Amino acid sequence: MNKASRLFWPTLVTPKNAVVKQTEQLSRSQKLLTDLGLVKPGSNGTYQLMPIAQRSIDKCINLVQRNMQEAGGQKISLPVLTPAQLWKKSGRLDGDISEFYMVRDRSGKQFLMSPTHEEAVTAMLATTAPISYRQLPLRLFQIGPKFRDELKSRFGLMRAKEFLMKDMYTFDVTMETARNTYATVSDAYERFFRQLEVPFVKVEADTGMMGGSLSHEYHFISPVGEDTLLQCSNCGYAGNAEVFGSDTETPSTCPSCQGPQLSRVRGVEVAHTFLLGDKYSKPLGATFLSTSGKPETLVMGCYGIGITRVVAAALEVLSTEQELRWPKLLAPYDVCLIGPKQGSKEQATAESLENELLQTLTQICGPEEILHDERKELTIGKRLLDAKRLGHPLTIVVGGKAVQQETPNLELHASGAEKLELDVAEVLSLVARHVRHKQKLLHEQQGELRISQTIGHVH
Amino acid sequence: MNKASRLFWPTLVTPKNAVVKQTEQLSRSQKLLTDLGLVKPGSNGTYQLMPIAQRSIDKCINLVQRNMQEAGGQKISLPVLTPAQLWKKSGRLDGDISEFYMVRDRSGKQFLMSPTHEEAVTAMLATTAPISYRQLPLRLFQIGPKFRDELKSRFGLMRAKEFLMKDMYTFDVTMETARNTYATVSDAYERFFRQLEVPFVKVEADTGMMGGSLSHEYHFISPVGEDTLLQCSNCGYAGNAEVFGSDTETPSTCPSCQGPQLSRVRGVEVAHTFLLGDKYSKPLGATFLSTSGKPETLVMGCYGIGITRVVAAALEVLSTEQELRWPKLLAPYDVCLIGPKQGSKEQATAESLENELLQTLTQICGPEEILHDERKELTIGKRLLDAKRLGHPLTIVVGGKAVQQETPNLELHASGAEKLELDVAEVLSLVARHVRHKQKLLHEQQGELRISQTIGHVH
Repeated sequence: MNKASRLFWPTLVTPKNAVVKQTEQLSRSQKLLTDLGLVKPGSNGTYQLMPIAQRSIDKCINLVQRNMQEAGGQKISLPVLTPAQLWKKSGRLDGDISEFYMVRDRSGKQFLMSPTHEEAVTAMLATTAPISYRQLPLRLFQIGPKFRDELKSRFGLMRAKEFLMKDMYTFDVTMETARNTYATVSDAYERFFRQLEVPFVKVEADTGMMGGSLSHEYHFISPVGEDTLLQCSNCGYAGNAEVFGSDTETPSTCPSCQGPQLSRVRGVEVAHTFLLGDKYSKPLGATFLSTSGKPETLVMGCYGIGITRVVAAALEVLSTEQELRWPKLLAPYDVCLIGPKQGSKEQATAESLENELLQTLTQICGPEEILHDERKELTIGKRLLDAKRLGHPLTIVVGGKAVQQETPNLELHASGAEKLELDVAEVLSLVARHVRHKQKLLHEQQGELRISQTIGHVH
Repeated sequence: MNKASRLFWPTLVTPKNAVVKQTEQLSRSQKLLTDLGLVKPGSNGTYQLMPIAQRSIDKCINLVQRNMQEAGGQKISLPVLTPAQLWKKSGRLDGDISEFYMVRDRSGKQFLMSPTHEEAVTAMLATTAPISYRQLPLRLFQIGPKFRDELKSRFGLMRAKEFLMKDMYTFDVTMETARNTYATVSDAYERFFRQLEVPFVKVEADTGMMGGSLSHEYHFISPVGEDTLLQCSNCGYAGNAEVFGSDTETPSTCPSCQGPQLSRVRGVEVAHTFLLGDKYSKPLGATFLSTSGKPETLVMGCYGIGITRVVAAALEVLSTEQELRWPKLLAPYDVCLIGPKQGSKEQATAESLENELLQTLTQICGPEEILHDERKELTIGKRLLDAKRLGHPLTIVVGGKAVQQETPNLELHASGAEKLELDVAEVLSLVARHVRHKQKLLHEQQGELRISQTIGHVH
């Protein structure tokens, strides 16, 4: 059971004469996260996750991990420090390296604080006893911090210099089986985004600095998105405007159906997949033993989900100016229970109902999913305001008013809905329904889930 | 269900003419981990965790987290990058900084790749709306990578330049309540080490570069340990030799009972606790509002557990030269099931028993805790050798021999014990007992657990 009185939740203090700098410009969700004390800015472009936000991030990690394992992924950890030497071999130190954090150890050897791990994972396989074709496909993933010294970090967790990523690297025998792997992992990505119930769009993407032959991005649609997406209302095609070589001009015809119905929308990139081919495995010498027993170059793919960015961007899309709204599977708690105020006439009666409810709720949700706001020194109104701003899926109020009638009538506030007045059984039934819905989201097999309101079809 | 045929488990390839350098010297467990492909060396002093080892590390993370939450800990995340400016304020950049990885961002601002987070967490609190004394004690922890550019990294994960830590920071009103917090967290530490069932010793320690007034270390006893511990067989006192100002000479009398029975032993430090007082909160200005409404300096403690080191050191203590041995709660899988070889006479009968067993085992342990070695192209002997080297707590063999008798007789290999021949019911009963033992370890409250064979009492 989590008690609100013990919860560390440091609301923002802005010095009176503070000037909000352009670089600190906050989007709607980031302003709420900061004001409410869920996220605190560290040094320029880095962020500290406070306990409530950490709960959501941990849930996101678990959900992503579950989906990666269902796609045949095996979890590993690669060091943050990657020798620069490996990046020289892949050629990725030849271009603009201003976004890399470079560091030297005491012997003068140079390392990157890795923004991604293609080189590291490929070099690891290259120094491994040759893998047989029988062991392929191989799908390895990790979840950990990544570093990018962005010129313009902004919108808080949405574009931070240090962020949490899930990155998967896959290894196949041929381009054809690598395409199968690409399809399997893409299915897992789509399932993950459906489980979040945030409208998303999957678009054809530019392969950029990563290289490779095929690439897709997953976007949440938002005015603060930094990408321009083109969508065809005729055939459902969707692509990143970068693919067309221009971010500002809309091409006159859809590349898929040649119709004229292309429109533009802003997207926040939350995931990216690449069919890499041999771009890394060839220069780094990562091979497998083919059916003939000879070494052949591994065919690779890589697949990223920005964990911290997904949570931040989902909040950006779902929240209002005043209240956070969470994907159900990522809400820090399922239920907030607000008890009576100290000294109210009906305090004793209400407290007895409060304790009864806590016991039953614990059975329905588990103790970890309940936030008990027992700050009796505060008015119910003040605590309800906190609860609504924090956006708990369900908030139950057991105040004096609730027990004035013969049959207790509780206030139930579901996130984003009007207040309801319900008896105890009705409240518990709504909580149970919420838990069932979450279970359904978690366990539903791919394809069974109603595709959530995607804008444009998946191409 | 985990299938051995799909498991990435890259055994070591050492070029024939390779010279093992002094810096790569491996302890017993590290040699096994490397040879078996559970851990691969990255660049000098960094390590890559492969899937089997990752499972153990994840279990260790969960166990530590559980204990920290039971001690009132709230999980947060602080950035890896800490501004050097904060360390200047605390004075910790004044001494030897050769172990720090320092990095500059594109604007020239200097950061540490944090080896620890006292400065960061204290500065975070200092820029927070003043905490009331009512909100204290506050106990914040995180689990993440730490960096230390060791002069001598060695013994693999036991002393790596990049490692996984749990670090907790506590904040109290007075030195007296801070001592209560210190006792509570220390209890959680002792519970954690008892749950591992690895003999440990808690010793008085030097406060070193961390500072503060009171400090204890937790050690596993091992010849590869880098610390010298002094123990009194008369009164049970135990201390790090550093406390006596000399690492090489044994003092003639025990500082506690003044008896002459001090002896020396080597220890691997796996955890460290510090009562810090105001060493960080004062220079960084972290205060709370006292009962009189005035700001007063917070009284701090800090508490670390080296996650990767605990797992490595536990293996070092428990394993033999040939076989890994895991703490039960950290074993990658509970049970390994080896099926019959392809083409053996009794293959069909054995496979039917194998499938039956898999179903029942799944019910007893859950699918995630079973490693099914279905590599039918390999002999049972070869697979059994793998299983024994990997050190699964329980390995069950369903070979042709098992089904030759009327009542199937299965080979059961418990880690570290002689092979048993048992019928199906007996095997399942032993598996169930193993699972119950784990549950008991997990759920037992502090103090209920038999104190595992500690060398010397806890001082």
